[in-house]
Amino acid sequence: MVPEIDGERLLGRLEAFAYVGATPAGGVNRQAFSVEDRAARRLLAELAQERGFTVFQDGIANLFIRREGSDATLPPLLIGSHLDSQPTGGRFDGALGTLSAFEVLEALEDAEAETRMPIEVAAWANEEGSRFAPGVMGSMAFTGADISAWKSNVGSDGASLAKELEATICALPEATRRPIGIPISGYIELHIEQGPSLEKERLPIGVVTAVQGTRWLEVSIEGAAGHAGTTGLAYRKDPMVAAIAAIHRLQATIMPLDSSARLTVGRIAAQPGSINAIPQSVAFTVDIRHPRVERLDAIEAELRQACAAEAEAQHCTAMIRRSFDMPGAAFSPDMVKIVEAAARSLRLPHKRMISGAFHDALFLARVAPAAMIFVPCRDGLSHNEAEYVEPADAVAGARVLLQATIAAASPR
Amino acid sequence: MVPEIDGERLLGRLEAFAYVGATPAGGVNRQAFSVEDRAARRLLAELAQERGFTVFQDGIANLFIRREGSDATLPPLLIGSHLDSQPTGGRFDGALGTLSAFEVLEALEDAEAETRMPIEVAAWANEEGSRFAPGVMGSMAFTGADISAWKSNVGSDGASLAKELEATICALPEATRRPIGIPISGYIELHIEQGPSLEKERLPIGVVTAVQGTRWLEVSIEGAAGHAGTTGLAYRKDPMVAAIAAIHRLQATIMPLDSSARLTVGRIAAQPGSINAIPQSVAFTVDIRHPRVERLDAIEAELRQACAAEAEAQHCTAMIRRSFDMPGAAFSPDMVKIVEAAARSLRLPHKRMISGAFHDALFLARVAPAAMIFVPCRDGLSHNEAEYVEPADAVAGARVLLQATIAAASPR
Repeated sequence: MVPEIDGERLLGRLEAFAYVGATPAGGVNRQAFSVEDRAARRLLAELAQERGFTVFQDGIANLFIRREGSDATLPPLLIGSHLDSQPTGGRFDGALGTLSAFEVLEALEDAEAETRMPIEVAAWANEEGSRFAPGVMGSMAFTGADISAWKSNVGSDGASLAKELEATICALPEATRRPIGIPISGYIELHIEQGPSLEKERLPIGVVTAVQGTRWLEVSIEGAAGHAGTTGLAYRKDPMVAAIAAIHRLQATIMPLDSSARLTVGRIAAQPGSINAIPQSVAFTVDIRHPRVERLDAIEAELRQACAAEAEAQHCTAMIRRSFDMPGAAFSPDMVKIVEAAARSLRLPHKRMISGAFHDALFLARVAPAAMIFVPCRDGLSHNEAEYVEPADAVAGARVLLQATIAAASPR
Repeated sequence: MVPEIDGERLLGRLEAFAYVGATPAGGVNRQAFSVEDRAARRLLAELAQERGFTVFQDGIANLFIRREGSDATLPPLLIGSHLDSQPTGGRFDGALGTLSAFEVLEALEDAEAETRMPIEVAAWANEEGSRFAPGVMGSMAFTGADISAWKSNVGSDGASLAKELEATICALPEATRRPIGIPISGYIELHIEQGPSLEKERLPIGVVTAVQGTRWLEVSIEGAAGHAGTTGLAYRKDPMVAAIAAIHRLQATIMPLDSSARLTVGRIAAQPGSINAIPQSVAFTVDIRHPRVERLDAIEAELRQACAAEAEAQHCTAMIRRSFDMPGAAFSPDMVKIVEAAARSLRLPHKRMISGAFHDALFLARVAPAAMIFVPCRDGLSHNEAEYVEPADAVAGARVLLQATIAAASPR
């Protein structure tokens, strides 16, 4: 019997989990380590135990559901995503990947299909980071980050991370405890795109080849406040002129020339902000993304050069601070090919693409061959209660995950 | 006997008036129609009456001190400035011009000098407008503005303009009431530059040939908020890119090409202002100045064209609102020559220049030949408690005002 995704079952599960932490506007509020997050973990663990799978959790509350393979010497292939959400999150971000992975386990079980590797569904802890920093906490810890550094962190609601983490783990006593981080054979994650491209191109499947690295720079250009009318041309030290020229130089070059690069100025302000005064200072932020760290470095260097030169031209000074830096990753070419072959074999239209947002897979890719499958979401909306995925697309994504899992877990 | 400015007397008067509304930081807080403003008006009126001059005031609280001329058929030549200040203002802005004008009257009186025209010192009411809008209220009313439109205005402190104006007029019963706006022969105003150019060029005197017109535009560019990483190039509707490109186009052309033009972007903000989100909208202000209204029109047209084109290029829309428009004025060439000749005859280094700020003279120029004399202020600082004028420069300005007044009041 060939394993097949049971679309109705999957959609029913998505519906059931959407009730856990449901918001009046149709989204979910299931922030990490909250009672709602614990309820979702319990629901999944109970479903797993009903099917006879083993349930594990580790010291950072990552949850694993294991189905054995035929070769006990092989480390497991992991598939999954996360169950926690933004405070006004959608019902698909994380849940789709986690519940589809569980559907894959059930489909294999239904078909009594054997895989060589064990397969584990992973529900990574605190991916969103909206309640407790940092985000992607579970996958970072799993791949080697030191969790003791976070233990004293306090949540956006004033709660203690250490206490809430402990309470979350204790709330699932039926899960066998194991250490954080075990050897794995690979990782595949299905996720909604959180952007508009698949929907616009009417493609049900994105084969993700890399995750953008993200770097945040905070620029401040200091000039001299002055009267807009009485300050002659020769005496103006206008930080706005410098800021505009520097940003324009970057906007006119980086993105048009390098299609993998993203450059966003999301915040800008002038002090004192008077309509008839040359500002004393102008501050703005720059978000740059690129899968390759050398390009992030090169773009940052261009930014520093542009700011310094334009500031100097206006007799101003520029200060630049790097406030966030997360390197990206290229996924394993072999694993990407497995996903691509799965989509092709199912005759599902697809394209290779880069993920602009980071995901747990970014960290897993550092310890094992990894890849991601994207499905479209309406209007590219995510981190939003209106987040929506067409049922057919959700099922298509799960079908690709099943085929890729079978291929990856039983290498020839 | 040749009339001469008594420098010591003038500097003493400046010192005395600086006590009226003195602030701990060495500036003055003498906002329009306040008890401090009334005290300064009373002090000047008393000094005038001691010297036997007639004191008038009109229904908007403009204060006039009159010295008769030999030809009773001629309308008076007006000289003066204002006595009100910003809340944290300096001791020279307005006071220097008013007290120097009074010193001119006293110098003529000391020398028993006869002029053909009567000469009146004018202390224009509410030039600053910081407590009650609009500013330049007294000179606007004097030159024909309808004061009934302002009567219901409420001050920054919640006070009623109508009540405070009435109380100010009543506080000076010794001044003869007369109608707002009488025929005048001309107007000369001494003022601090409120900019850095005279100080930097080490010139004690500026011969002001025109006052910049001022126009304020408020621009809003609307795009579509989006994730900084997941929104592909083809799907971005980034209002920041449009705003930066439009502003850059203007900054790169207007001021470098037209030395009389000033273009200042003093305020800019992005909504929602998130470091990792393409903004939904970007709003900024543009202050443009030019003595000629046709050029203001042309610059505004360029701005509108640049915003519309750059917005369209980013699939955004631009909205532009004109929030303030005050046409400039070129001063009477004859009156400018009189001021210039006065500076030359006193062997005081000087240059012709345009005033970037507006002054009462801008309005007087609409009804009679007018001109202005500028003196340098330290670091170009004004509207600031640290405002400072070198005593020698203050006296030099008053000497030019005296010579110009004599020449203008006794035409050959």
